[in-house]
Amino acid sequence: MSEIITLDHGSGGEKTSGLVKELVLKYLGNCILDRLEDAALIRAGDQIVFSTDSFVIDPLFFPGGNIGKLCVCGTANDVCMRGGKPYALSLALILEEGFPVADLEKILASIAETARKAGVLIVTGDTKVVEKGKGDGIYINTAGIGLPVLKNLGTEYIREGDAVLVSGTVGDHGAAVMLARNEGLLAGEIRSDCGLLTGLAEELQKLGDAVRIMRDPTRGGLATVMAEFAEDTPFLFELEEDKIPVREDVRSACDILGLDPLYCACEGRLVAVVEGSRAEEAAELLRSREEGRDAAVIGRVVQGAFGRVVLKTAYSSRVLTKLSGMQLPRIC
Amino acid sequence: MSEIITLDHGSGGEKTSGLVKELVLKYLGNCILDRLEDAALIRAGDQIVFSTDSFVIDPLFFPGGNIGKLCVCGTANDVCMRGGKPYALSLALILEEGFPVADLEKILASIAETARKAGVLIVTGDTKVVEKGKGDGIYINTAGIGLPVLKNLGTEYIREGDAVLVSGTVGDHGAAVMLARNEGLLAGEIRSDCGLLTGLAEELQKLGDAVRIMRDPTRGGLATVMAEFAEDTPFLFELEEDKIPVREDVRSACDILGLDPLYCACEGRLVAVVEGSRAEEAAELLRSREEGRDAAVIGRVVQGAFGRVVLKTAYSSRVLTKLSGMQLPRIC
Repeated sequence: MSEIITLDHGSGGEKTSGLVKELVLKYLGNCILDRLEDAALIRAGDQIVFSTDSFVIDPLFFPGGNIGKLCVCGTANDVCMRGGKPYALSLALILEEGFPVADLEKILASIAETARKAGVLIVTGDTKVVEKGKGDGIYINTAGIGLPVLKNLGTEYIREGDAVLVSGTVGDHGAAVMLARNEGLLAGEIRSDCGLLTGLAEELQKLGDAVRIMRDPTRGGLATVMAEFAEDTPFLFELEEDKIPVREDVRSACDILGLDPLYCACEGRLVAVVEGSRAEEAAELLRSREEGRDAAVIGRVVQGAFGRVVLKTAYSSRVLTKLSGMQLPRIC
Repeated sequence: MSEIITLDHGSGGEKTSGLVKELVLKYLGNCILDRLEDAALIRAGDQIVFSTDSFVIDPLFFPGGNIGKLCVCGTANDVCMRGGKPYALSLALILEEGFPVADLEKILASIAETARKAGVLIVTGDTKVVEKGKGDGIYINTAGIGLPVLKNLGTEYIREGDAVLVSGTVGDHGAAVMLARNEGLLAGEIRSDCGLLTGLAEELQKLGDAVRIMRDPTRGGLATVMAEFAEDTPFLFELEEDKIPVREDVRSACDILGLDPLYCACEGRLVAVVEGSRAEEAAELLRSREEGRDAAVIGRVVQGAFGRVVLKTAYSSRVLTKLSGMQLPRIC
């Protein structure tokens, strides 16, 4: 195995096959992927949950994770949020000529570890190589398949009186990645929340149809997800600023960076709308897991202005809209 | 809608949402995709066929197709080759800042047209934007889901006496793309074979388990696929050079370009190994469709050197191995 990726590795011939066998299968091999066919035949059910994301994060390695961990969490989490239990992933790599094989190996090891934790198998994949200057090290796409546990999820199930919950502090991922990009700034202890939501989703599944909708607030952050939920309903989403968990150091870092933590990407948090009377129970279920220890009820769905989100602060209130323009390019 | 893609279009906020609603849904909208959730709940069966490919072809537009047509054909074909009938695709775009929206629109229109022909819906997707100089216009990943029609496919089903078929002329795609890159050369009438294999796969399904394995010879071409099949068996694959259909102008172009058509990518051809006694029937089935009019039986599986491929020419014979090194970078 050479030390860097060359265009040959994308030829589809001997070199591609060598890269896949020596490196990809070393970390990710299983009885399905080992067949190295162009497609995999896998078990399913009457219905499946299907999701995809490409990951173009910069930098590739950041406090709390790397693109490998992220590409498994991101897609597994999207499947969970649609009520599914993920079990199979595809993995497609776009490598830039000259990319260090040692870095690829670290990324594959993270993918393997995270996939094991998520209980998913990588069952099919693809490897392409582009010339130096036509990529940025590595871009990864994953697509995920899950079996549905909760089917009746969507903004159409949201009712007046429902509660809004978040599973932990917001903005950690955005702040950690922005600090990692600015070497001059003191990163301190801020780590990305990049992580799996499989466990927390399992907890909320216990509430059945009392769960109206779930979403992981990635690009665009909590505020954008709230605005997207609200715009599909005839209700007002009333959030209380002092209930929304934000780490003090994340708040300070965001101040310095000129960011609003409510618009910063999370990569291991979920937002859920649940039946109002089950709000505390939902929060307790989330808090029963380590990754949900900071879960909080942050707002209510009430009668009022059609499809808007209002953030109530100590002295006033402001309307939250979707992120407009770019806050953080290539955050995931 | 602006005329070029900006980093804002990848923010995950208002601009991303605008791009997706105004452009992506305009061409690809359907009752599932229109929900714009991070994952889709779709029907399935006991088992599904699952495949993915990223497309990084250069140039994006070439005689006979473009990256949009290619990204649907490529994944739909992979699902077909594994015995599946494709019905759902994911679509993930990695756009380079500055990419002309008019080009994106042409590509989306091709995706829509090809998906309609293939009978597949785009059910979930993702859009990312990278800075100018970190991509090359557009990279696309698709993942595909199909319901299995033929399940017992694989090199383990190959038997002595089986026949090898190809559904049409080989090397057209590789030659067309290479000519498109070299403006000085006369492209003549050479067009890529980029196209769907859904119809031809349906024909071969009529043979049931007499079909041992199918594959579309993309990167690495016919020779690499043959070498991959053979290496998994204890047999000798004996191909007859004069039976392998190659267009005269493709052969000439390959001569000029220093390429071997047997190693040139096809994007709308299939290779199949079928039970020997059904070979002519299989060829007739393929020829019954316009896209299979040049189908031919090109070889046999015989006792002999363990896992090798031999090409018999008029006066001698040579061993075919997998493509080593790069023949054509970024051919798909």
